[in-house]
Amino acid sequence: MAKSARLDDFRIPFFDGDKAGKRVSLADFDAGAKPFSAGSKQADRERLAEYAVKLDEMQERLHAQRRERVLLILQGMDTSGKDGTIRAVFHEVDPLGLRIASFRAPTPDEAAHDFLWRVHRQTPAAGELTIFNRSHYEDVLVPRVMGELHGAELERRYAHIRHFESLLADSGTAILKCFLHISKDEQRERLQARIDDETKHWKFDRSDLEAREHWDKYQSAYAQALAATSTERAPWYVIPADSKSHRNVMVAALLLRVFEGLKLEYPPAKESLKGITVT
Amino acid sequence: MAKSARLDDFRIPFFDGDKAGKRVSLADFDAGAKPFSAGSKQADRERLAEYAVKLDEMQERLHAQRRERVLLILQGMDTSGKDGTIRAVFHEVDPLGLRIASFRAPTPDEAAHDFLWRVHRQTPAAGELTIFNRSHYEDVLVPRVMGELHGAELERRYAHIRHFESLLADSGTAILKCFLHISKDEQRERLQARIDDETKHWKFDRSDLEAREHWDKYQSAYAQALAATSTERAPWYVIPADSKSHRNVMVAALLLRVFEGLKLEYPPAKESLKGITVT
Repeated sequence: MAKSARLDDFRIPFFDGDKAGKRVSLADFDAGAKPFSAGSKQADRERLAEYAVKLDEMQERLHAQRRERVLLILQGMDTSGKDGTIRAVFHEVDPLGLRIASFRAPTPDEAAHDFLWRVHRQTPAAGELTIFNRSHYEDVLVPRVMGELHGAELERRYAHIRHFESLLADSGTAILKCFLHISKDEQRERLQARIDDETKHWKFDRSDLEAREHWDKYQSAYAQALAATSTERAPWYVIPADSKSHRNVMVAALLLRVFEGLKLEYPPAKESLKGITVT
Repeated sequence: MAKSARLDDFRIPFFDGDKAGKRVSLADFDAGAKPFSAGSKQADRERLAEYAVKLDEMQERLHAQRRERVLLILQGMDTSGKDGTIRAVFHEVDPLGLRIASFRAPTPDEAAHDFLWRVHRQTPAAGELTIFNRSHYEDVLVPRVMGELHGAELERRYAHIRHFESLLADSGTAILKCFLHISKDEQRERLQARIDDETKHWKFDRSDLEAREHWDKYQSAYAQALAATSTERAPWYVIPADSKSHRNVMVAALLLRVFEGLKLEYPPAKESLKGITVT
C-alpha cells in the first residue's frame, strides 16, 4: 500500500441490513502492511509523539467542555497488542482524563445480567475518554467459536450491539472500534517469546494457547462480527498490527480524526470572573 | 531544612487515643520549603523522571503479583496541585495499571448512604494502584468548617475513618496520605493567574473563592483531621507544595518508599509453560 493509503480504506463497510453483514474476509487485509508508517520505527515513534501531544490537548478540551464523550474499543487476538497500544498511544494523555475498562471473564454477578449490563456501566460520561480493553464483542466471539451461539440467536446479539451503540451515539458519544490484526506467524513469535522469557509467565496461562488452536474459527467469527456491527456512528477499522510502531501510529491517527470531528473548543470565559482581584 | 531532611520529619505523629489526636499546627510546616529538592527546577525534573521510571516498574510488579494493593490519597486546598501531582508523577506509569478516583460533591444516590460508601467502592483491588483525588476526608473538613459537624459526632467520624482504613490495611492495602501544603499567598497567586487567563475559566467557579475566605478554619480543620487519622498503617505526610517541582519529587519519593516496602517480585516462572514450542 503506497503513501496514498486512506484511513477509510481500512474501514469495514457499514452494515446495511444484510443478515450476516457484508461479507468480509480478514485475509483481504495484510497484517504485515504498514500503510501509515512514517518510514522507519524511529520515524514512527516521532510521529506518534506528535500525535500524542495533540491527543493530550484534545482530551483537555473534551474535559473542559464536559459535553461530548469518546469511546475507543480495542479488540484483537491474544498478543495483538491491546495493552501495548494503550501504553504507547496514551502515554502523554493526562491520567486524569483517561479511563480504561478491561473486560475479563464475567464475574458471577455480571453473568447474572444480560451481556451488555457490565459494559453499559463503564461507558464514558460527558467529558470523558474511555478505552475498552476487550469489550462486549467477546460475547459474540468466544461462544460462537465454542459452538454455543449461532443462527438467529447470534444475529439477535449483533442487533443488540448495534442498538446499544446507537444509544451511546445518540447521547453524544463518538465511538471508534479498532481490530488489531496480526498474522498467525506473528502471534507464534510473540507467544514463543513470552514462553522463553520466564519473567513474562505471569502474563498468561497455558490455556491461552487454546484460542490459537481455533485461529481460523476466530478469524471468521471476527470477520462476521465486524461486518454485522460496523455502522456510520460506530465504525470498525482493521489495523495492520504485525508492526507495533505502525499499529500505534494508525490508532492514534484514527482517534485524532475522531477528536477533530468533534470541533472541541474551550468553554468561553466567565463574565462572573472577569476583573476579580484575589485578596 | 538541609540535605539531612528525612521524609519522616514530615509525617504527622500517629494517633494514640487522644480524643482530638495530637495537637498539630500546619503553621509549623513551611509551605515554601524544598527539603527534598535536587537543587533546581531542572534537577528536580530529572530526579522525578528517575523516580517515575522506578514507579512504573514497581507498578508492573504489583500488577504481576496481583496480591498487594496501593492507595494514595491526595488532599489539599484549591490550587494546591492535586491534579498537577497526578499528571507529573504518574506520567510514566502504564495507564493500564493506574486508576484515579475523583470525589466531588456527592450525588443524591451517594448522599443517601453513609459517607464511606462511595469511597469503599473505589478502593484498589489486588494488583491495583489507585489514587484518590480528594476523598472521604472532605467529609470531616467541609461540614466542620461550615459548622455542621463538631464534638462527639466529629470524633465518631474520625474513628470511622481509622477503622475503615485499618480494614483496607488488613486486606493487604498499603496506604499513603499526602496533604499538599501551600501558603495563602501562593494560593492567591494561583487563583489570580486562573482568573487572568480566560482559557482557564472552565476550571473553576466564583464559588471556589469562598473556601479561601475560610482559610484559617480550613487549616485548623485539616490539622485536627490529620492528627486524628494518622496511623502506622495509614500515615499522613505534609508536603511543602509552594514549589511544584519539589511537591512532585517528594510525593514520588514517598510512594516509592511504600512500594519498596512491599518487596514486590515477579511471580515465579510456570512449570507448565517451560519448554513449550508454539506451533
